[in-house]
Amino acid sequence: MAGNSFGKIFKLTTFGESHGAAIGGIIDGCPAGLSLDFKAINAEMQRRKPGQSSIVTQRKEEDEVKFLSGIFEGKTTGTPIGFLIENTDQKSKDYSHIKDIYRPSHADYTYDKKYGIRDYRGGGRSSARETACWVVAGAIAKQLLQNPPAGRTGIKITAYVSSVGEMELKKNYSEVDFSEIEKNPVRCPDAKMASKMEDYIKSIRKEGDTVGGTVTCVIQNVPIGLGEPVFDKLHAELGKAMLSINAVKGFEYGSGFAGTIMKGSEHNDIFKEDGSTKTNHSGGIQGGISNGEDIYFKVAFKPVATIMQKQETIDSKGNKAEAEGKGRHDPCVVPRAVPIVEAMTVLVLADFWLLNKVTKL
Amino acid sequence: MAGNSFGKIFKLTTFGESHGAAIGGIIDGCPAGLSLDFKAINAEMQRRKPGQSSIVTQRKEEDEVKFLSGIFEGKTTGTPIGFLIENTDQKSKDYSHIKDIYRPSHADYTYDKKYGIRDYRGGGRSSARETACWVVAGAIAKQLLQNPPAGRTGIKITAYVSSVGEMELKKNYSEVDFSEIEKNPVRCPDAKMASKMEDYIKSIRKEGDTVGGTVTCVIQNVPIGLGEPVFDKLHAELGKAMLSINAVKGFEYGSGFAGTIMKGSEHNDIFKEDGSTKTNHSGGIQGGISNGEDIYFKVAFKPVATIMQKQETIDSKGNKAEAEGKGRHDPCVVPRAVPIVEAMTVLVLADFWLLNKVTKL
Amino acid sequence: MAGNSFGKIFKLTTFGESHGAAIGGIIDGCPAGLSLDFKAINAEMQRRKPGQSSIVTQRKEEDEVKFLSGIFEGKTTGTPIGFLIENTDQKSKDYSHIKDIYRPSHADYTYDKKYGIRDYRGGGRSSARETACWVVAGAIAKQLLQNPPAGRTGIKITAYVSSVGEMELKKNYSEVDFSEIEKNPVRCPDAKMASKMEDYIKSIRKEGDTVGGTVTCVIQNVPIGLGEPVFDKLHAELGKAMLSINAVKGFEYGSGFAGTIMKGSEHNDIFKEDGSTKTNHSGGIQGGISNGEDIYFKVAFKPVATIMQKQETIDSKGNKAEAEGKGRHDPCVVPRAVPIVEAMTVLVLADFWLLNKVTKL
Amino acid sequence: MAGNSFGKIFKLTTFGESHGAAIGGIIDGCPAGLSLDFKAINAEMQRRKPGQSSIVTQRKEEDEVKFLSGIFEGKTTGTPIGFLIENTDQKSKDYSHIKDIYRPSHADYTYDKKYGIRDYRGGGRSSARETACWVVAGAIAKQLLQNPPAGRTGIKITAYVSSVGEMELKKNYSEVDFSEIEKNPVRCPDAKMASKMEDYIKSIRKEGDTVGGTVTCVIQNVPIGLGEPVFDKLHAELGKAMLSINAVKGFEYGSGFAGTIMKGSEHNDIFKEDGSTKTNHSGGIQGGISNGEDIYFKVAFKPVATIMQKQETIDSKGNKAEAEGKGRHDPCVVPRAVPIVEAMTVLVLADFWLLNKVTKL
Repeated sequence: MAGNSFGKIFKLTTFGESHGAAIGGIIDGCPAGLSLDFKAINAEMQRRKPGQSSIVTQRKEEDEVKFLSGIFEGKTTGTPIGFLIENTDQKSKDYSHIKDIYRPSHADYTYDKKYGIRDYRGGGRSSARETACWVVAGAIAKQLLQNPPAGRTGIKITAYVSSVGEMELKKNYSEVDFSEIEKNPVRCPDAKMASKMEDYIKSIRKEGDTVGGTVTCVIQNVPIGLGEPVFDKLHAELGKAMLSINAVKGFEYGSGFAGTIMKGSEHNDIFKEDGSTKTNHSGGIQGGISNGEDIYFKVAFKPVATIMQKQETIDSKGNKAEAEGKGRHDPCVVPRAVPIVEAMTVLVLADFWLLNKVTKL
Repeated sequence: MAGNSFGKIFKLTTFGESHGAAIGGIIDGCPAGLSLDFKAINAEMQRRKPGQSSIVTQRKEEDEVKFLSGIFEGKTTGTPIGFLIENTDQKSKDYSHIKDIYRPSHADYTYDKKYGIRDYRGGGRSSARETACWVVAGAIAKQLLQNPPAGRTGIKITAYVSSVGEMELKKNYSEVDFSEIEKNPVRCPDAKMASKMEDYIKSIRKEGDTVGGTVTCVIQNVPIGLGEPVFDKLHAELGKAMLSINAVKGFEYGSGFAGTIMKGSEHNDIFKEDGSTKTNHSGGIQGGISNGEDIYFKVAFKPVATIMQKQETIDSKGNKAEAEGKGRHDPCVVPRAVPIVEAMTVLVLADFWLLNKVTKL
Repeated sequence: MAGNSFGKIFKLTTFGESHGAAIGGIIDGCPAGLSLDFKAINAEMQRRKPGQSSIVTQRKEEDEVKFLSGIFEGKTTGTPIGFLIENTDQKSKDYSHIKDIYRPSHADYTYDKKYGIRDYRGGGRSSARETACWVVAGAIAKQLLQNPPAGRTGIKITAYVSSVGEMELKKNYSEVDFSEIEKNPVRCPDAKMASKMEDYIKSIRKEGDTVGGTVTCVIQNVPIGLGEPVFDKLHAELGKAMLSINAVKGFEYGSGFAGTIMKGSEHNDIFKEDGSTKTNHSGGIQGGISNGEDIYFKVAFKPVATIMQKQETIDSKGNKAEAEGKGRHDPCVVPRAVPIVEAMTVLVLADFWLLNKVTKL
Repeated sequence: MAGNSFGKIFKLTTFGESHGAAIGGIIDGCPAGLSLDFKAINAEMQRRKPGQSSIVTQRKEEDEVKFLSGIFEGKTTGTPIGFLIENTDQKSKDYSHIKDIYRPSHADYTYDKKYGIRDYRGGGRSSARETACWVVAGAIAKQLLQNPPAGRTGIKITAYVSSVGEMELKKNYSEVDFSEIEKNPVRCPDAKMASKMEDYIKSIRKEGDTVGGTVTCVIQNVPIGLGEPVFDKLHAELGKAMLSINAVKGFEYGSGFAGTIMKGSEHNDIFKEDGSTKTNHSGGIQGGISNGEDIYFKVAFKPVATIMQKQETIDSKGNKAEAEGKGRHDPCVVPRAVPIVEAMTVLVLADFWLLNKVTKL
């Protein structure tokens, strides 16, 4: 009800503020008997954590996850998986300078109005630090879906940066080489474009400013039949999942907004005799249910609100005030958003995959 | 679980296939004591129903809603509101020609694969006829939110057609006159553009083709504090609601995809002393919670899949076959989508408005 | 949230007041591909309906169920099953005499206080007529569980009357012949005791009074592993299900209240080598999970509140008033409660059986 | 879905095995702005913890709760409250002797069959240690309901031991002095009876045996209107809550099983002019909704399954084996169950109290 759980069968519930003792969560409904690869979980955490490269925030967070339950001798037991990530970077800083200030385009004002109280240290509950818990759960869900019974050859989820500001990779996902993604700090699968984007982000950082961008995500080897057709359509849950990520302003799948100017005779995906389709404007989903084609979608991120410039604002009493970002913030959120997009995607898929086991006799 | 319910407190559960005896639903959690204006409910139904103008399907459906429970002497009693809409247009037609055919870009193939069985008459459960039930529930939710305690002056929801194919109304919502919307069959609040769009839809229909478009929706007089911050952000639920509507391929709110090319220093909405903001790139939502500014978003609709042209396809055994739309379909879905967008929007708001009553002491 | 749904995967949502146009419901989550035996559904309805014998209410209700969706060519399609039962006995009676009266030990007073409004015709939403919808859903769930894959030889659920007032059948369920149950109007599987109970109920009716009793329920051929161990224990959900039935005041399973005076050394069920147990004080459930032994439990029903005698009471303004039952009420509820106990039991089992499909890899 | 959450709005989700690193949970939906009394929380923990007296297990567990989030400067913030209780008594013992043994009337066998894997150390997830988390959440819920707006004078919940084996306190709750409860280790509000019970428990312990008993719970100062009438009746949720507690075999409220032998003319509770009733066989609940009278119910606990005697059993391969309790177990569970019964009761009430805020306009 209060918005801290995601999923129905494979369900993540999280807690934690950025500057409390720890953040963490409970993964409930993960089937028993899954052998966990803890190195793989840690690798996902490393992809998300701050300080990986010169174009992201230089905050140091170890983001070590401690599993407290639900795992025995390396396997899931079917009981809830409790986990913790301690806030090692949590300092007894003086936050009095932001205590009563509403930072522009942050959640300070809305939290105060909604709850009448707010943990003003860091971003409190609205901090993107929360997404570390999503990556933990996503890493486990990924292992579930790569398990042989889940997909023909294992569901494969790949996200990458497709634009930074006006710099856009104008290639279809099928034209790029996914193995390039992790070779550059921007996570753009085109070395040239990645280099331009990197330079641009550096220049933005120098200005003390920030910039937005987009992330594209592709799901391959999807079993047919995932998604519940009316209100819980596969793409509706994917959309909700993406819009849960901080700074996301838009979501489109398949032909997306560009599909609105097409005619039906162009847009319809003609079946081949094996049930696959000649084109894939549908984006792998028809009637809210996966049809076995690749699923692909794009997510729009606004520029990070924290900028290293003075901004006019107000305090909690309505007096004029000034806000200025301090510390170590991301000039562009999309490189670090890549593993988060993947994590939320796999959470949606794991849930629908389990749910689909009870669809027919 | 099976995707036929929407909402948590104010909750709609629906049933029904387009060619069964009836469609209908149960609205659970509507507070007791709401005086219902049945004429207003009927007016919403009229806006959605087929056959309203020359540019939409000419099917005749009366779409008369019968309330069966939960209302006593014109007021809600707090018990579930059961309702029915009979399928009067349901004919004992011969559907054998489509029985085994998978129409391109429809849900025929995915339903068959998911469930192993499919009601092939009309669109079955995937028919947009389902949305008639959403409009019923939305009309009641609208009355709940217009009730004095809900908003300062009553929450106001307005949707309109902002593009048809490449014809786009390039005006911000604040520059158009909402009273124009219902004056033309396209539901575009600009008489000139509406006329062009109408002509274009007519030409598309003559070709036996279809075209997509976009709908813009604006929510005014929103109380501050709606939305649950982490997974059930206000815009995430709005996005999910929109992506539940048949043919929707994308959703963006506030600055949307255009916001990705902006810098933080441009995008941040500076507070005025009364807590309102000078700009509204945030689209009325910060940290997933309404901030009292207008909420606005845009929804992308693909062209309707049923076209009046022969298309190559396959049957359920994988043999080549031919599909051709028959009957009375919409050449462009967006004019009739306008009341549906409003209905789903108000369902989201009503649920969050009720939920917000238990947020703080 | 508002208490009109039961179950998680196999989920029933109901609506309707006793004197509105109809009652009905939506069964969501029934797997696709189940061939329905409509005669068997109707037979369950006949067991519950009023007027079956001289010891139950003489109201005439046909209780004909109309299925509106989710079934195609005799099979479930995986989409929601909407159904209606019209209130044919609904008369345009004058209810003004009870309009403002709070009948003792009815729900009149609490509904008025909770909702501020109440449909005073008949029992409104609190009428036991509601249970007709439960029997519809239960009859479908029964067919699901009798399907070969559900149990070794199909789960079998049998309820019977084990006491009426002080007249108690002092035999264990394993000592009685279930085939006797439906041979007498009391539904007690012992002809002699049934005859005594019948005479007693008749004498109670002559006094214009009512009496309580107990129903025992036995579940046989239960697959091992049903039930979720912590908060959704199998017996906890069975208990909740039983306590949802009107007039129920108590529930015990296995050794029940009598088990409280036993010692552990007596109560523990010793395993045989095949995993079955020598005794069954556990009532077929250990740690909240079925262990394959018979599940058995007892349900306590208070005497029906409507008596054919004058009773002192108050009206809605707090003035003294008088209430007297009119019409055709049950002098003892337990005979008609038998199919309702079975229906709620099978709803619990069907839900856990489906849920158990996602428990392990 | 997997049974590790309790409540709808005020919702507890737990994790943890008895011999893992920690147990803990997330309390979601606690309204913002509640000042927490941590001493009072700790006092409840002390009432539950082992080793309090000579008649309970002598295990030493400090049961110190660490709050990790959702609380700021002593007040709840409306965000989820994460908490941990470390398993300080967790020893690197050798559990190999019970690794493959199914202890009689424990959950070993059913867990193994359900999940195919089991954490055999201690009771794993089925350990009553889990209830420490319930007491944490219950202690917070209690503070919520004692807050002025919740009840006229604050809802008051009192549980006590009403029987140990055959030794039964034959007094109505209204005849006993609640202030006596905590004065003796049995928690029976009658010094004489408590002394007898204590002696009896000691003799049982000497035998290496265990015994059952009952706990009575009384809720006073209940606001009228709590409970959702059809499937989520107040007493149905209370029953489910009680049946979630380890070793519970039965639940009755108001007149309970004794009510089954009463006549309607005796059982009906006659209204007084102020809406209260002369008798209270209804147990404070009518039609599933609280009527403002005292709510009272009784819970049956079987004898603890772990006895200090040799018992015949089987191992996981179906071979004969022998089980014998070791260590420090409770000879009688009811004294320590008292705070657990209270905790689960208050969780039910807090949830319904919040839910009731959206019942009417």
